[in-house]
Amino acid sequence: MKIRYAMVGGDLGAFIGEIHRKAINLADDVKLVSGCFSRDYNKNKQTGEHYFIDASRIYKDYKTMALEEAKKEDRPDFIVIVTPNNTHYSIAKIFMLNGFNIVCEKPLCFTVLEALELEKIAKENNILFGVTYTYTGYSMVKYMQQLIKDDKIGNILQVYAEYPQDWLISALNNEISGPGLEIWRMNKEFSGITNAVGDIGTHIEQTVKYVTGLKIKRLLAIVNRFGYDLDLNANILVEYNNGVIGNYWCSQIALGHPNGFKIRVYGNKGSLTWFQETPDYLEFANADGIKSKLIRGASYVYGNCLNVNKTPKGHPEGYHEAFANIYKTYVKALRKQKNNQTLLPEDLDFPNITDGVEGVKFIHAVIKSDKDDSVWINL
Amino acid sequence: MKIRYAMVGGDLGAFIGEIHRKAINLADDVKLVSGCFSRDYNKNKQTGEHYFIDASRIYKDYKTMALEEAKKEDRPDFIVIVTPNNTHYSIAKIFMLNGFNIVCEKPLCFTVLEALELEKIAKENNILFGVTYTYTGYSMVKYMQQLIKDDKIGNILQVYAEYPQDWLISALNNEISGPGLEIWRMNKEFSGITNAVGDIGTHIEQTVKYVTGLKIKRLLAIVNRFGYDLDLNANILVEYNNGVIGNYWCSQIALGHPNGFKIRVYGNKGSLTWFQETPDYLEFANADGIKSKLIRGASYVYGNCLNVNKTPKGHPEGYHEAFANIYKTYVKALRKQKNNQTLLPEDLDFPNITDGVEGVKFIHAVIKSDKDDSVWINL
Amino acid sequence: MKIRYAMVGGDLGAFIGEIHRKAINLADDVKLVSGCFSRDYNKNKQTGEHYFIDASRIYKDYKTMALEEAKKEDRPDFIVIVTPNNTHYSIAKIFMLNGFNIVCEKPLCFTVLEALELEKIAKENNILFGVTYTYTGYSMVKYMQQLIKDDKIGNILQVYAEYPQDWLISALNNEISGPGLEIWRMNKEFSGITNAVGDIGTHIEQTVKYVTGLKIKRLLAIVNRFGYDLDLNANILVEYNNGVIGNYWCSQIALGHPNGFKIRVYGNKGSLTWFQETPDYLEFANADGIKSKLIRGASYVYGNCLNVNKTPKGHPEGYHEAFANIYKTYVKALRKQKNNQTLLPEDLDFPNITDGVEGVKFIHAVIKSDKDDSVWINL
Amino acid sequence: MKIRYAMVGGDLGAFIGEIHRKAINLADDVKLVSGCFSRDYNKNKQTGEHYFIDASRIYKDYKTMALEEAKKEDRPDFIVIVTPNNTHYSIAKIFMLNGFNIVCEKPLCFTVLEALELEKIAKENNILFGVTYTYTGYSMVKYMQQLIKDDKIGNILQVYAEYPQDWLISALNNEISGPGLEIWRMNKEFSGITNAVGDIGTHIEQTVKYVTGLKIKRLLAIVNRFGYDLDLNANILVEYNNGVIGNYWCSQIALGHPNGFKIRVYGNKGSLTWFQETPDYLEFANADGIKSKLIRGASYVYGNCLNVNKTPKGHPEGYHEAFANIYKTYVKALRKQKNNQTLLPEDLDFPNITDGVEGVKFIHAVIKSDKDDSVWINL
Repeated sequence: MKIRYAMVGGDLGAFIGEIHRKAINLADDVKLVSGCFSRDYNKNKQTGEHYFIDASRIYKDYKTMALEEAKKEDRPDFIVIVTPNNTHYSIAKIFMLNGFNIVCEKPLCFTVLEALELEKIAKENNILFGVTYTYTGYSMVKYMQQLIKDDKIGNILQVYAEYPQDWLISALNNEISGPGLEIWRMNKEFSGITNAVGDIGTHIEQTVKYVTGLKIKRLLAIVNRFGYDLDLNANILVEYNNGVIGNYWCSQIALGHPNGFKIRVYGNKGSLTWFQETPDYLEFANADGIKSKLIRGASYVYGNCLNVNKTPKGHPEGYHEAFANIYKTYVKALRKQKNNQTLLPEDLDFPNITDGVEGVKFIHAVIKSDKDDSVWINL
Repeated sequence: MKIRYAMVGGDLGAFIGEIHRKAINLADDVKLVSGCFSRDYNKNKQTGEHYFIDASRIYKDYKTMALEEAKKEDRPDFIVIVTPNNTHYSIAKIFMLNGFNIVCEKPLCFTVLEALELEKIAKENNILFGVTYTYTGYSMVKYMQQLIKDDKIGNILQVYAEYPQDWLISALNNEISGPGLEIWRMNKEFSGITNAVGDIGTHIEQTVKYVTGLKIKRLLAIVNRFGYDLDLNANILVEYNNGVIGNYWCSQIALGHPNGFKIRVYGNKGSLTWFQETPDYLEFANADGIKSKLIRGASYVYGNCLNVNKTPKGHPEGYHEAFANIYKTYVKALRKQKNNQTLLPEDLDFPNITDGVEGVKFIHAVIKSDKDDSVWINL
Repeated sequence: MKIRYAMVGGDLGAFIGEIHRKAINLADDVKLVSGCFSRDYNKNKQTGEHYFIDASRIYKDYKTMALEEAKKEDRPDFIVIVTPNNTHYSIAKIFMLNGFNIVCEKPLCFTVLEALELEKIAKENNILFGVTYTYTGYSMVKYMQQLIKDDKIGNILQVYAEYPQDWLISALNNEISGPGLEIWRMNKEFSGITNAVGDIGTHIEQTVKYVTGLKIKRLLAIVNRFGYDLDLNANILVEYNNGVIGNYWCSQIALGHPNGFKIRVYGNKGSLTWFQETPDYLEFANADGIKSKLIRGASYVYGNCLNVNKTPKGHPEGYHEAFANIYKTYVKALRKQKNNQTLLPEDLDFPNITDGVEGVKFIHAVIKSDKDDSVWINL
Repeated sequence: MKIRYAMVGGDLGAFIGEIHRKAINLADDVKLVSGCFSRDYNKNKQTGEHYFIDASRIYKDYKTMALEEAKKEDRPDFIVIVTPNNTHYSIAKIFMLNGFNIVCEKPLCFTVLEALELEKIAKENNILFGVTYTYTGYSMVKYMQQLIKDDKIGNILQVYAEYPQDWLISALNNEISGPGLEIWRMNKEFSGITNAVGDIGTHIEQTVKYVTGLKIKRLLAIVNRFGYDLDLNANILVEYNNGVIGNYWCSQIALGHPNGFKIRVYGNKGSLTWFQETPDYLEFANADGIKSKLIRGASYVYGNCLNVNKTPKGHPEGYHEAFANIYKTYVKALRKQKNNQTLLPEDLDFPNITDGVEGVKFIHAVIKSDKDDSVWINL
C-alpha cells in the first residue's frame, strides 16, 4: 500500500524539516507529494523541485493547500507540520478539519486552550495525530519502558532527569548579534512564554512519562532568564500521583553538554539510566547495586523496541533513527487504519495529541510557578 | 616539634575511628597518647593496649579524661571526637573548657543552639576547631576551589550536586533485622532529626560552599522517609545570596551508586565536575564546551592543593588521603599556633567550627521546609 | 543532475544491502533503477517490486544484467556489489568491462592477482571505484585525519588499534548448529583464507592508513582458529616505512565488545583516540597529557569532515551516516565526472580500488606470517 | 607480637621510600628501628631523627649495618631495600647471609645469574622474601585472580594488557636538561639494560601471571629507544604454555596516560578488565557480553581480597593501600613464621623471590628478542 505525505514548513535550508524527510526515508517507503515549504515563494518552489514534486502541488499558503489537496484523489495520507511554534495551531486545525492525519513538531501549540481545541477536533474527526517528541523513538528508551513495565526495577522511588545543553552560552555572553536560530528561540513572538522549558524541558516531561507511566500531580519551578525575555535554565521539582519525587533540570547554558539529556529512574529492585549522547546503551543497576551496560541489538533485548530495531549491536544508531522509529510506528498504524484494521495499543506507540496537550500544560505550569515566586502548582 | 593527640570514641572495631587514626598517620608524625575509646571498658582497654598507650591514660569516661589530661605536662595538643552524633556537644564542650583543641566528626551536634554555644566557647578560648567534612580534603576539590577563585569558569550560573548511595536499600526492603550500623543511622536517638540529610546531604552543602564560596539565602526541600522515622532520600533546591540556584539531591536508596557524590558548577566561561568515586580527576569544560580531564599530580596543577599532594599523577589517592589532608593542614596550623606564629587564612584551609554551625543550620532548615509541605525557608 | 544506480546482491532480507540502500538515501537523491538481488528468483523479483523497479530490469544473472543495462539510455551511473566475497571479482570485472562505475563491499576479492587485475581494468577504463571500508566514512575519523595532517599530534610514535567483537563466542562454544550468517563467515568457500582478519582486521589496516597515511613495510601475525578452519582472533605487529610500530588486535570472541573498534595514535605533541561505539567523539590528549573530548558538530571542528557533517553536536550519528558519507562523497565525485569537471584529490575522499588491493595484500600477508610460525613478512 | 623493620635507601626526599613507610603504617603496627637511608650522611642522619630512630642505629654503609644489626637482641624482623636497582643484589645478599628477611623493590636485580643466586640464598636460609610488584596488592586484582581461579570466565582465550604512561615525553622532546629522576631511569648504570620494560613492562608480566597463573613459553618484542640508550616504548607478544596469546604494550611516551596500566583477560565464558587509575572497579563481561562494574567493598565480593579490604565500597583506595596490602600479608606471614606456625599457600599471597627471578628473566628475553630483529625467544 502506497503512503503519501505533504509538508508545511521545512524548506531546503531548514534543519528540522530535513530531519523529518530523512527519518521518513529511513522508516518506510513513503512519498512526498505536495508542500508549502516556505513563506518565501522562491525557497518554496526550489524545495518542491528538489524533491521532484509536481509544481502544481506547491502552495503559496497552507490554507489553499489544505483545501486543494483535500480534493485530490491521491491526496496525502498525512501532513507533516514543521513550521515555527506559533503557527502549529492554525495549520493543524485547518488540515484536520479537511480530514488529514497529522504529524506535528513539538510543542503542539502556544496555549492550553488551543491545545484542548486541537485535541477535541482530532478526536471528533478520528485523526491519527503524532507529535514528534523525538526521544521516545530511541530503541533503548522503549526498552527502558519495557523493563519498568515488567517490574525489573520494582517500585519507583525517585526520578532524576536532566537536559543540559550549552549552545546558548554565546547568547548569554552577548556574542550573537545577527539574526539567526538563537534569536528565534529567544523571541517571545515565535517561542511563546518559554525558550528552554518549551524546547528541551518538555522532552524531560514527555520521556519520563513515556518510560515510567507516572503522572505529575504538582510541580514547582525556578527558571533563570539572565536578563533575557525567555528562560535559558530551569530547575523543576515534580511530585507524581503516587507521591514519588522527580527532579528535572534543563539548561541551554551548561558548558560541556552538547545535548546531555539523561534520565535516571530508581526503584527498590534496580535502577535504569539512559543518556541521549550514547543512545544505544542502557545502564541497569540490579538489587546488589551492580551496574550493567545493556546494548541495543543484543540477544537479551526484548519487547516493543524490537519492532524498530535495525542494525546489529555495536553499530551505532542515533538521532535520525529515533525520528525514523516514530515515523515507522506512525506509518504502520496508518496502513492498518487505511486497511480498516483495528489499532491495538501497541500500534500506537508514538506520542499523540493527548501527549501534546499535556506538554503544553506542563510548560504553562512551570512558567506560572516561577512567576509566583516558585510555589507549588497543581496539574 | 612533637604533637600529641587523644581520642574519644573509636574503639578497635569502629569504622570511623580507625579512618581517623590512619589518616593522622598518613598526614604527619603525631602520637596518640590517651583515650576513652568505648563505653565498654574491655574494648576501651584493648584499644589502648593495641596502640601502646599507657594504661593510666585510658579513661572510663570522657569527663574524667578531660580533667585528668588537662593536668598532664605532655597533655594532648588536640582531641579527636568520633563518638555517635548525640554526644559530640557535651564532649566538645568539656574538652574546650579545659583548653583542648578539637577535631570533631560531623555533624557538629544536634541543635542550632548547641552549635552556637560551641562556636562561642571555641572563639572565647581560642580553640583550633576542625570538623571533618572529609570531601573538602581531596586535592582536586581544593583545585576546583582554586580554579573558581581564579575566575576560570567566570560567573557561576548553576550548581548541580548529588550524593546518591545505595547501602540502605536493604533496610528499605526490610532485609535488615538485627542491630547494626544501619539501625544506628535510622534511630532518632543517635541521629537526631535526620538520617540521609545529616549524613550525606550536609557534605553537599559543605563541599559546595568550600569550592564556590556561595552562601545559601533560602532553601526548599522534600525528603522521603518511606515509612521510617528518618529520611532516606531528599531533594533540595537552594538559592544563594547572588540569586544563583543550586540543586541538591542525596539518597541512600539509589541503586547503582556506591558513594556517588558529584558536584558540578557551571559558569559562563567554563564548568567543573568532580566525582568522589574517581577523586583524582577534575573535569573542566571550557568556553567552547570542550571537556578536559585534569588529574591530580600533573604539572599544570597549581595552588593550595599542592600543599597536600603526595603521590605522582596516576597513582590513585582516595578516602584515607582526603582525611589525611584535613589533618595535615590542621596539624601544621597547630604547630604554628604552638610556635606563636600568626595563622594566615591559607593555614586554616580545613572546615572549622563556623562551618560546623552552618552545617547544623542547613540540616534544620531542610527538615523544617519538608515539614511545612516544602515551602521556602530563609537561612 | 539525476544519478541512477543498480545493485547486485542485497535482497530484502540481506543486512548489508539494506544498509547500502538506506545510506544512499541519507546521502543524496539517487534512484535505484535495476538489479540482480538474489540467485533465488522469487526473492529477486520481490525486492525489485518493493523498490518500484520496472520488472524488465530485474535480472536472473549478473552477466545478462551487465550486457543489457549497458545498452540502456538511462543506464545506471554506478553498480553496487553486495554479494558474498567470493563473487566480487567476476561481478566487478564484467561491469567494469561494460563501462560501469562500481561501489564494492570489502574485501575487494579473494587473491592478490585478482585484485591487481581489477585495479588494472579500473584504471584502463577510467572507472570511479569505491570500496566500502565503512569506518573511513565517520566524520570524526575524517577529523582525526585532518588533525594528524595538520601536525596537531606531531610525529607519530606508536599506533595501537583493536577491533574486538564477541558475536562468534557462541560458535566457539558450539551453540550454533543451523546454517546462518556465522556459518557463512567461517566457511572457506565464501570467506576465502580468513574470517576475522578479512572481516574486521582489514578495517584496522584501512582506517589506520586513512587517518595516518602510514604505509606498512612488514608485519608479523599470530591468528587463533580454536579448532575451526578460519581465524577468530589475531594479533598483528606492523612496522611502517618510517620505523614506527603499530599493534593491531582483532577478535570475534572477545566477550564484552559489541563492536569495539578503537584506534589510538600517539605522537610527540599529542595523541588521538577514536572509538567506533561512540563515533561522534574524538579524544585528544595535548602535550601536557590533558585529555579532551572533541565532538562532531562543534564550532571548533574544521576541514573535510564538514563536507559530510549533518546534525548538530550532541545529536548522535552512527553506522548509517558513516556509510552515507562514503556515498555522499562518491556521488558528488560522479556528478563532477559526468559534468567533465576535473576531480581534485579532496573530491576522492573515499576508499578506492588501490585501497582495495592493499586490503587484499594485507590479509594474505597476515595469514602467511601466521602459517610460517609468525615470522616477519615484507609487504 | 612486636614486629620491627629497617630500611636501606629511602631518605626523606625519596619518593618510593616514603611510599613504603606509609604503606607499612597503613598495613600494620610495625616499628622502624634502624636504617642506612642515604649515601649522603646528613640526609641519612636527618631521616633517622625524623623517625625517632636511635642515632646509634643509623649506619654509614649497609655492610656495617647488616653485621651490627645482626647482633642486636631487638634486631629488625625484615629489611626494606629501596635503593637504585643496581645495588639491590649486593644489599639483599649480605642481609640474607646475616639471616634477615627481605622486602625488595622491583626489579630484583640486574642479571639472571644474580637473581638465581639470590633465590638460592633465600631458599637455603629460609628467608621470607617479598618483591613489591605493587599492582598485585590491589584488592580488585586479587578478586580478579579469584574469579579466574573459580572459572567465572572459563578458558582463557586472549590476554591484552597495556601500561602506557606519558611522563617521559618531555625527555623525548628534549626539554629536560638538568639531572633528575628522568635521567636516573634512562641511565644504563642505574637502570641496567632497560628503562620502560624494566620499570613498567615487568608489572604487566607479573600482574598477568598473578591473576591468570599463565606461564610464558616464548615471547617476541620490539622496543623503541627514539635515540636514547634505553627503551621508552615496547610491544611484546607472548605465547603461554597452553598456546594462548598475550599482547603487552608499555610506554612512557604515550600522551594522555598518567599511569594507564590496564589488564584484560578474555575467556570463553566471560572477560575481566582492571584499570589501575580506577583500581576499586573490576569490569566483568558475562557470556551474553553484558558488561558489569564490580566494586571493592560490595557485598558480593568474596575470597582472598577480603583479607586486605579496608574501607566500605565507594570510598576510594589507591596506591598507598595496594602497597599496604602487600605488607599486610607479608607481616602477617612473618608473625606466623616467628610463631613457628606453618605457612599455608594463602599466607604467601605476595610476590616472592621466584617472581623476582622470573621478572629478571622476562626483561632479558624482551631485550634479547628486540636485539635479534624481533624474533621469538623461548623462556
